[in-house]
Amino acid sequence: MASLLAAKDSSPIEDAEAIMRACKGFGTDETMLVSILAHRNEAQRKLVRLAYKEIYHQDLIEQLKSELSGNFERAVCHWTMDPAERDATLINEALKKATPDYKVIIEIVCTRNSEELLGVKRSYHSLYKHCLEEDVASQTSGDIRKLLVAVISTYRYGGDEFDENVAHSEANILHQLVEKKAFNDDEMIRILSTRSKKQLCATFNIFKDLYGTTITKGLSGSPIDEYNGALRTTIRCINNTQRYLAKVLCHALNDLVNEEDALSRVIITRAEKDLKEIKDLFVKRNNATIHDTVARKTWGNYKTFLLELLGDE
Amino acid sequence: MASLLAAKDSSPIEDAEAIMRACKGFGTDETMLVSILAHRNEAQRKLVRLAYKEIYHQDLIEQLKSELSGNFERAVCHWTMDPAERDATLINEALKKATPDYKVIIEIVCTRNSEELLGVKRSYHSLYKHCLEEDVASQTSGDIRKLLVAVISTYRYGGDEFDENVAHSEANILHQLVEKKAFNDDEMIRILSTRSKKQLCATFNIFKDLYGTTITKGLSGSPIDEYNGALRTTIRCINNTQRYLAKVLCHALNDLVNEEDALSRVIITRAEKDLKEIKDLFVKRNNATIHDTVARKTWGNYKTFLLELLGDE
Repeated sequence: MASLLAAKDSSPIEDAEAIMRACKGFGTDETMLVSILAHRNEAQRKLVRLAYKEIYHQDLIEQLKSELSGNFERAVCHWTMDPAERDATLINEALKKATPDYKVIIEIVCTRNSEELLGVKRSYHSLYKHCLEEDVASQTSGDIRKLLVAVISTYRYGGDEFDENVAHSEANILHQLVEKKAFNDDEMIRILSTRSKKQLCATFNIFKDLYGTTITKGLSGSPIDEYNGALRTTIRCINNTQRYLAKVLCHALNDLVNEEDALSRVIITRAEKDLKEIKDLFVKRNNATIHDTVARKTWGNYKTFLLELLGDE
Repeated sequence: MASLLAAKDSSPIEDAEAIMRACKGFGTDETMLVSILAHRNEAQRKLVRLAYKEIYHQDLIEQLKSELSGNFERAVCHWTMDPAERDATLINEALKKATPDYKVIIEIVCTRNSEELLGVKRSYHSLYKHCLEEDVASQTSGDIRKLLVAVISTYRYGGDEFDENVAHSEANILHQLVEKKAFNDDEMIRILSTRSKKQLCATFNIFKDLYGTTITKGLSGSPIDEYNGALRTTIRCINNTQRYLAKVLCHALNDLVNEEDALSRVIITRAEKDLKEIKDLFVKRNNATIHDTVARKTWGNYKTFLLELLGDE
């Protein structure tokens, strides 16, 4: 369930006008911006952005970029974007790093459903005049490229049907590959990148039933290189999205210097989806609520904004 | 341009009723079926099928299957289908053969644009409860799998922009790979499967300018195995779709015993698109019109049907 507490009824024109007033003159009324934007859902934000463009002939995101700064700017701008545009931007940023941030790319690609991922690809076309697959393929190499391009490309089947026999035979294939430490085998990548998520969850469950251990545990005995890490992230994102994202939040809050982007990314991308479940899993893992932890470890408008998106404790 | 001569105005209900009358009792009035269906465009056929379902509670395709037989049945049913459903069916049939018919799969995937291919993938999901990528990946292996899965998966950028520098550098990469006969190199597959068609055409043109020969000629000196053949088909379909399809028609008409499906496939899938250009290229290649050749080499209702779809000579 969503954590977002969206206004029941709001006027896009009044919102746009209030945002303009908050940005006018010297200084910016950040409190006003948070009080509006952190309580508008995707459809409402879209209408506010349209109204802003219509009235002031300026893109709201550009306006916010010029008024705000640092983590707060980044978070508010990402939040205000259309989710597909935001994901496309996040992947593009992850690709541009000296070493592409594979985990971010996999997190986005493997936790969205096929239609959402298609939307990301369409946004990527329109933002960068390239396709997502060609940028990922041209900026990576070796095994990690094989895995990334495969999971990004497939338009997975999203239905509930799965084949018990396939799950058995592929759990067996995966187990043999894990035993042989043949993690980069084409069959490993084929199974993880082309099967539907329901099919894969069935396969992972049978793996556990048959061999008494999870497939990620099977991988974790090995030295964790970049590829191995990417493989485990892929499996975790597909197998239990909420548990994976709770873990990302936990790591981020333990290492905010390096992982601050992960904190806002997960809160922003899940606030309208399943942040309630993620918050519950966070508490179980940490014996502390994410509200308390965020309140303790972040500050200023940024803190206020994230806490608003986290919703009721 | 389309070769199809569609009725200016037609009534879906009257069409459905006429088709029902043509199918009623012993024997079928094939002439009536051809006179209607071969002169309805995609939208009109869709409405006829809907009307048929509404009035007679039966799927028109199922009705046609039970009334007709042989090549004629196959052609009329394929024609009556929605193009995305037809392409999904054609690929599924190609995959089910003892040796999957790679050329058919590549022809369909590489001559449709990204939105059309997406439609095929959606149809595939709904018809087979699987995704296209997983069926192709699980029913192929080795280099041919790498190539097929890659070209099938990518949601290519479809815009007109391309990068001259990328075209230069990738023409160079392709030339080095061709010289080394490293046709199955990951870079070869990356370039052909992820770049936009405009980008690839620019790359192929620069290849020709720089090295005085086309890339397909560079490949053709080598012994033609399955993979090499699939690679050349991919390049030809992207570089000049109409020329490739004219060649397919020509080969089919020279070997109807084995290639009859190719004849009806190309006519049916292109009659509403670019069959006029393909017909012109056929004449240049053969010093005979495709009308004359089809009239000479096929017979019966099947011949009549194909000639109607070929339109004016």
